[in-house]
Amino acid sequence: MRFKILNQVFFNAIDNVSRALSTKTPMPILKAIKTDVTKEGIFLTASNANITIKQFVAKEVDGQKIMEIEETGSAAIPGRLLLEVLRKAHSEYVELALYEEKMVKITFGNSEFTLNCYDVREYPNISLISSTDPIRIKAKELAQLINQTVISVSTNESRPILTGVNLWVENNELICVATDSYRLSRKVVTLSEPRTEPINIIVPGKSLQELSRILVDFDEEVAIHLSPNMIAFEFDHLIFQSRLISGKYPDTNRLIPQNFGLELTMDRQELIDVIDRVSLLSREGATNIIKFDIYEDKTIVSLESPEIGKVTEEIVPKHQSGSLIRIGFNSKYLLDALRVLEDDEVTLKFTGEVRPFVIVTKDVTVTQLILPVRIE
Amino acid sequence: MRFKILNQVFFNAIDNVSRALSTKTPMPILKAIKTDVTKEGIFLTASNANITIKQFVAKEVDGQKIMEIEETGSAAIPGRLLLEVLRKAHSEYVELALYEEKMVKITFGNSEFTLNCYDVREYPNISLISSTDPIRIKAKELAQLINQTVISVSTNESRPILTGVNLWVENNELICVATDSYRLSRKVVTLSEPRTEPINIIVPGKSLQELSRILVDFDEEVAIHLSPNMIAFEFDHLIFQSRLISGKYPDTNRLIPQNFGLELTMDRQELIDVIDRVSLLSREGATNIIKFDIYEDKTIVSLESPEIGKVTEEIVPKHQSGSLIRIGFNSKYLLDALRVLEDDEVTLKFTGEVRPFVIVTKDVTVTQLILPVRIE
Repeated sequence: MRFKILNQVFFNAIDNVSRALSTKTPMPILKAIKTDVTKEGIFLTASNANITIKQFVAKEVDGQKIMEIEETGSAAIPGRLLLEVLRKAHSEYVELALYEEKMVKITFGNSEFTLNCYDVREYPNISLISSTDPIRIKAKELAQLINQTVISVSTNESRPILTGVNLWVENNELICVATDSYRLSRKVVTLSEPRTEPINIIVPGKSLQELSRILVDFDEEVAIHLSPNMIAFEFDHLIFQSRLISGKYPDTNRLIPQNFGLELTMDRQELIDVIDRVSLLSREGATNIIKFDIYEDKTIVSLESPEIGKVTEEIVPKHQSGSLIRIGFNSKYLLDALRVLEDDEVTLKFTGEVRPFVIVTKDVTVTQLILPVRIE
Repeated sequence: MRFKILNQVFFNAIDNVSRALSTKTPMPILKAIKTDVTKEGIFLTASNANITIKQFVAKEVDGQKIMEIEETGSAAIPGRLLLEVLRKAHSEYVELALYEEKMVKITFGNSEFTLNCYDVREYPNISLISSTDPIRIKAKELAQLINQTVISVSTNESRPILTGVNLWVENNELICVATDSYRLSRKVVTLSEPRTEPINIIVPGKSLQELSRILVDFDEEVAIHLSPNMIAFEFDHLIFQSRLISGKYPDTNRLIPQNFGLELTMDRQELIDVIDRVSLLSREGATNIIKFDIYEDKTIVSLESPEIGKVTEEIVPKHQSGSLIRIGFNSKYLLDALRVLEDDEVTLKFTGEVRPFVIVTKDVTVTQLILPVRIE
């Protein structure tokens, strides 16, 4: 194995696959990035218990030569170290060569790194799923879908199902829901073609967060492949495969109220600033329960902590309709929801003081729901 | 106590004194900022076991009105919380008022915070030292002096003296030395007037680091007051007082060699990049000892770790004189030294493979010294 490659291209590819590197693992070889050099280009693979990422770097892109391959071959190179070496190689090209099947030499400028490698023959054989008829979705839409739902996945491993995002298809709609049983996020994406086969899966929230970080740089279509226990996202010569969580996700359709007695429309950034300030008292104190006292002409947002003090903020809604209530809930949930919504205005819709309320925007595809707590 | 003040000015002052706030303390009141409102302006005080910071905010600055004082008085306000509230108050003015001697109300825009205060009568009485004939030094020079020496203070509390910077005066020179016994930093500042009284003190490195962070924003003269066990830095209505470390600092004058058999001049940034890359292998490995093999036309910098691999970098000095050696030392020490020097070029001067070597620049007031380790 011996090749010379544009460092910026190689670094970006290594950076992508390194998101699947294991840090703590009973299999040390999973700290390596498997590097397979063929005549057409380089395949890079990294894997951990949840996800596998495989990226192909083509020899040429749009007529631009990316690399020169002198010798094909494979190596299992320590992933983190390779990434850091490339990050600090202030050089246009880097050259990699395998020696004695157990060391890789990385050279650039006046620098030469020799890294001990793992035995590539011991790298586990990970099969990647594929299908001829994948679900297709734009990368930006997929990233938005993830960001707007993943806030509500549970971090509590005692109910593993709730640590995932539930995805299912109804006709030509892909529906995504996450809930930790205190709040819920729901997003609907319209597919270009209706699907006939039944799809209803649970994808680990952490996998989706890693995927979302890679998607940031892309602006094209993603193909989604499914198997009974795997999901794979394919885009730009990259396959991101995650295990699925088995089990039956709770039915969340009934949870979102449809009729509301009170609607408040507010400036999103203004409300973020208010909740952010009010939350200052919750950080050091025992409670993070804020109260909304909704009057005809204004809403008072408040938080009281006997040890620390109290804060009240007044906010004048842009529009308001319906009867008045007083409601208490976790300030963090509202802040998370407001931050992933994208319109300038948000509408809070209430049905009662102890009933869930929703936060929506002009973009009707996304709904955030929060369960209130009883307050005195 | 009741006043209205320009938030930007008040926030900056609170930010400055908050560097002396205690986080863990047997005296909870030291989590407060003592706020004394007089007819002329506001005094703010915070204190911990090592330092006390007192700042005065004048009612008017250059004819600009900073505050309106409606009622004088004192309060001991929770410091961290006050700082965070002001940081998030997107308002030109904030108003503070004391209620029932135990709560302070902070109002701005549509926000109202009521914070429980400490009993200001219980705030310890901290005397600040002063003198009619302080040492005077420019803020930028003082900041540079701190940054260029404090890297070498010891973090090991078993020899408390070495956790401080030794300062003494010889005629019109202020000399500062720090050493953790593996490396040494020395800086000389010329004073505008010679001093006759003997001065030789040890200032805690941590105190100087906090001072340096406040100095960043200033560009004027600092007056330094001394007492047998305290040092106070006075500038821009602010007094920063630190305890001194008692004891006798080791004599460091003999440690810096004066004659060198080999001198290498290199581009500082190029050398930083080289050491930074070579150090990649030390992070994950057992050793952080790098080797310099100095040949006539080039220097090879290398690090070898049996488990991880090895790295060699070649660097061509801009100038070189003297006989050749091979020397090993801790890469972190060289990186620290290079980063606080300010010239484009640095010169490394050696006397032998197991003798200390120095790093100097065109600015002859600063010397960095490193002890090598024996290598095979």
